[in-house]
Amino acid sequence: MAEHHTVAQLDERALLERIFPRLGTADVPVGPGDDAAVIEAPDGRTVISIDTLVQDQDFRLEWASGYRSSGFDVGWKCAAQNVSDINAMGAVPTSLVISLTLPGNTPVRWVEDMADGLRTALHELGAERCAVVGGDLGRGAVLVVTAAVTGDLQGRAPVLRSGARPGDVVAVGGSLGRAAAGLALLEGTSGYGGMPPELQALAAAQSRPLPPLALGPRAAQAGAHAMMDISDGLIRDAGRLARASGAALALDYRRLDHFEAPLRQAALMLGADPRHWVLGGGEDHGLLAVFPPAAGLPEGFVHIGSVAEAAACPAEVTVDGEVPDVLGWDHFKG
Amino acid sequence: MAEHHTVAQLDERALLERIFPRLGTADVPVGPGDDAAVIEAPDGRTVISIDTLVQDQDFRLEWASGYRSSGFDVGWKCAAQNVSDINAMGAVPTSLVISLTLPGNTPVRWVEDMADGLRTALHELGAERCAVVGGDLGRGAVLVVTAAVTGDLQGRAPVLRSGARPGDVVAVGGSLGRAAAGLALLEGTSGYGGMPPELQALAAAQSRPLPPLALGPRAAQAGAHAMMDISDGLIRDAGRLARASGAALALDYRRLDHFEAPLRQAALMLGADPRHWVLGGGEDHGLLAVFPPAAGLPEGFVHIGSVAEAAACPAEVTVDGEVPDVLGWDHFKG
Repeated sequence: MAEHHTVAQLDERALLERIFPRLGTADVPVGPGDDAAVIEAPDGRTVISIDTLVQDQDFRLEWASGYRSSGFDVGWKCAAQNVSDINAMGAVPTSLVISLTLPGNTPVRWVEDMADGLRTALHELGAERCAVVGGDLGRGAVLVVTAAVTGDLQGRAPVLRSGARPGDVVAVGGSLGRAAAGLALLEGTSGYGGMPPELQALAAAQSRPLPPLALGPRAAQAGAHAMMDISDGLIRDAGRLARASGAALALDYRRLDHFEAPLRQAALMLGADPRHWVLGGGEDHGLLAVFPPAAGLPEGFVHIGSVAEAAACPAEVTVDGEVPDVLGWDHFKG
Repeated sequence: MAEHHTVAQLDERALLERIFPRLGTADVPVGPGDDAAVIEAPDGRTVISIDTLVQDQDFRLEWASGYRSSGFDVGWKCAAQNVSDINAMGAVPTSLVISLTLPGNTPVRWVEDMADGLRTALHELGAERCAVVGGDLGRGAVLVVTAAVTGDLQGRAPVLRSGARPGDVVAVGGSLGRAAAGLALLEGTSGYGGMPPELQALAAAQSRPLPPLALGPRAAQAGAHAMMDISDGLIRDAGRLARASGAALALDYRRLDHFEAPLRQAALMLGADPRHWVLGGGEDHGLLAVFPPAAGLPEGFVHIGSVAEAAACPAEVTVDGEVPDVLGWDHFKG
């Protein structure tokens, strides 16, 4: 079949036959093709989450900079943001089920690329036990990709948002601000094709994020009191963790400013403040974690502040003792 | 807040606070509000599936007949079609995670109704162990409701599509054709408001389907060789089961024609053939099951044919020995 064929020219069965061979084999009791899949839940529990990408809300097929999001990018991002939620519980991802809503003029090749992006992301992010075990296909006016993801706690307690206690150490694992800088570059008018490699790498942090999947289980093993995925920006997500814990997070910008270094060139080019990307940028899918003060931080985490009594602070989250002027991303208001 | 407010006037947190209290309490290790939920998987396995409803593809906010799909209808249908996939494996539904994509002008009241419809459907269908444990909210041009559902096999083997053997008895549990007749009525030009109650009941079979949740586990306990959800019409789904089993299904219309009786009034009014609804209509979410010949059928199933050698039949599915002229629904081609 020629490259320019669209999904409107195939029925459901024919399209599934194009997708599933690209996803590899799922080593599960029942994989794709039946009414439902069956996965192992070795410790008698299953972690589960769901996340959606909507065209023109969460990604664009064509950006102002001229960059075109490939199916590979969208498949990668779908896998990455879903497995990140499992990572944030201290668990290991075990399966994905995917629902695709496709406009009839979507090229079949785009859908095949999406399957490749899903599989490659799971492999390169280190989610080796995680496979696509099922899915659903339908038609719609815009592309919508939803995945539900499961995880295995390997006998450990889940690390919740609610366990931070005054005196605990606040830490970050992974990067901050890179995906936000990348978003600004993609939405800017400087042509993507002419950007130097270090700026293209920031754009890639937006379109193919790299959640640090080794760090979630490692933090759980190290006795983290609380943890969450930073998907909507450090300040907004720290506020959620603080609220869930009934405590305040006092962040120290001196410990955060090294995250600005890789963003300075993009900030200069766009006339932006890199501090806003560090504090307010989401979608890097790093981890915000809180550890008891006596324990050393596990490898991969950096100390960024401490947990305080809520009553002793002017806000749920402070930076250098002040209320930050950065809000971050509201998924719904956009 | 007044009834006419739209979701564009709320942020994610405020909207979630409107939805979650209506969903009841989930008796699970970790419920809504963290990065992911944690559910019990008592026999060391979890059944999982995903299904999406897209506005103007799977439901209409306003039909030609004047009927308006409520949020309650869409919530009910989302719950029903998802738990049906778990039922078809012989399992019991244990949790739902829901992703909602909402246009900004969606009334908040519509979303609250949807939550009510989800909860009421789970209760009235008998999915007592199943609760909504998590979700995701986002914006988009049309309403898209995706749910992933989990189930518990209670120590039994899953009942797959692939186990039918020549000589087995083919049976149906639940209704056939009612949802298809209801769809034709909703899309017809006769005003919904003026329809007699028995026709409005057919429309309800489309907007609030009633999958027979007791029958899936019962069929598994009775030793069913194969089973699936009839979501795309008896003939199409029977073809899938036949193909998965490497066998043919020989159906006997004499055993099916009693399904026509409740459809005759609608067929007469619309000039339709009720046989097409019985053989080709999906979305009742009844069960197609195959039992060994020696066993009696469990209560709730009716005998509709037998499994034959594929080589001995002119097609994967025959009705009274002939290839049926009814295709059923392709989710993707629509």
